[in-house]
Amino acid sequence: MTQAAEMLRTYPGDLAGVDRKALAACIDECFTCAQACTACADACLSEQMIAELVKCVRTCLDCADICDTTGRVLSRHTGYDANLTRTMIQACLTACQACGDECERHASMHEHCRVCAEECRRCERACRDLLATLG
Amino acid sequence: MTQAAEMLRTYPGDLAGVDRKALAACIDECFTCAQACTACADACLSEQMIAELVKCVRTCLDCADICDTTGRVLSRHTGYDANLTRTMIQACLTACQACGDECERHASMHEHCRVCAEECRRCERACRDLLATLG
Amino acid sequence: MTQAAEMLRTYPGDLAGVDRKALAACIDECFTCAQACTACADACLSEQMIAELVKCVRTCLDCADICDTTGRVLSRHTGYDANLTRTMIQACLTACQACGDECERHASMHEHCRVCAEECRRCERACRDLLATLG
Amino acid sequence: MTQAAEMLRTYPGDLAGVDRKALAACIDECFTCAQACTACADACLSEQMIAELVKCVRTCLDCADICDTTGRVLSRHTGYDANLTRTMIQACLTACQACGDECERHASMHEHCRVCAEECRRCERACRDLLATLG
Repeated sequence: MTQAAEMLRTYPGDLAGVDRKALAACIDECFTCAQACTACADACLSEQMIAELVKCVRTCLDCADICDTTGRVLSRHTGYDANLTRTMIQACLTACQACGDECERHASMHEHCRVCAEECRRCERACRDLLATLG
Repeated sequence: MTQAAEMLRTYPGDLAGVDRKALAACIDECFTCAQACTACADACLSEQMIAELVKCVRTCLDCADICDTTGRVLSRHTGYDANLTRTMIQACLTACQACGDECERHASMHEHCRVCAEECRRCERACRDLLATLG
Repeated sequence: MTQAAEMLRTYPGDLAGVDRKALAACIDECFTCAQACTACADACLSEQMIAELVKCVRTCLDCADICDTTGRVLSRHTGYDANLTRTMIQACLTACQACGDECERHASMHEHCRVCAEECRRCERACRDLLATLG
Repeated sequence: MTQAAEMLRTYPGDLAGVDRKALAACIDECFTCAQACTACADACLSEQMIAELVKCVRTCLDCADICDTTGRVLSRHTGYDANLTRTMIQACLTACQACGDECERHASMHEHCRVCAEECRRCERACRDLLATLG
């Protein structure tokens, strides 16, 4: 059981029917993806061909911030707002898709982009799965 | 001229046709609203009737995080992605609306909620104005 | 191998002699602790005895923000600044200690505080271990 | 009166003897500096000579995150912890000094670095002034 699942288990209130497994998985991927994108933006800065990677840095920075905020919003359950939750997951999904696409373009040249692209895909999928359970 | 407008003025690249005035105003409101919501959540915690304010705290915390991230995304212009920008402004607008509504319910009792609600409305409007210029 | 360790492995530049294992462990704990503290603050808001938990909420919110930022700073290696790194780890260590102490006071009553306190101790220890390797 | 000063004015609790003017000024500079550094990192990415600016990008990203978190910590007054507050202001001061120094090196070539360096100096000074009042 991950730490996010464990925190979810100890929540004293009601989870408004949200699927615990899909929620915990999405929170985990959001924080993992925020770290991966932060690290990939920095790794790109260390590459000799940085000029070709500026869009990748930017997309990674956006994705890191958006995943981070989504992970925080999803970690809160008190006074749950389904509309806001859905909108934020949608934004996260969009960011992960854009970042996954951009990193994938450099995946054969830069291993950090390959690893980051794979994490973006996992986070995108976790967002999609959670969104599906929200109805 | 605010600091955000000044940074925008010194940007060496192209702004992809984005309205500079609407953009600078929205960045300013995002950071101002992030601060106001952080402070309002904390002020609520200091009230005797905190039990009636838990939803307000939560909505403020979400709104602070989302405004913060939106202000960051809007401060980046390199490798501009119109789709991601629009999605994030939409999420911010939704958060400000929810937080403005919730704070407004307590505005007559708690002055920090009144001030915060007014800031949420300003940020919501700035998001709406910027969104309109993006076509 | 965690995602943070994997990103570290693919970093193309030099790590300036920093201990990879201690660094990866500290990054992991920072993001895990940011999530746990965000969730614990929210869980406290859901408790009937919220009035007795306001200091706990505040300490958790600070700790979440500081762990988050420390995890980001430690995920960047390009243009490494030993002085800034040490100062930030020190701030994180201080935040985790304060939050661990506060959550521990409520651990027997609230399981989320117990789980969060344990995570704060782990993150504090990871900061201390990393600091020791930095000389 | 800025929004931060206005939120401070409406805080219902006790400010533990903290100098309101120095506190409001420091909160304002933290959020302004977080924006300036985020924008400067992005402006650097848009420069042709990006290869010479990678350390500047990194330092700006760290400074943005640290200022952001410091601005949040200083916006909370409930359950005030003087030790944690001081440690975080110290980290912010260190980050602003490092970023101001780095941006200054490029100030004659890049106007965004000049504007960002000046903001870092203002934020560094505001941190120093607030620290002095905390005794």
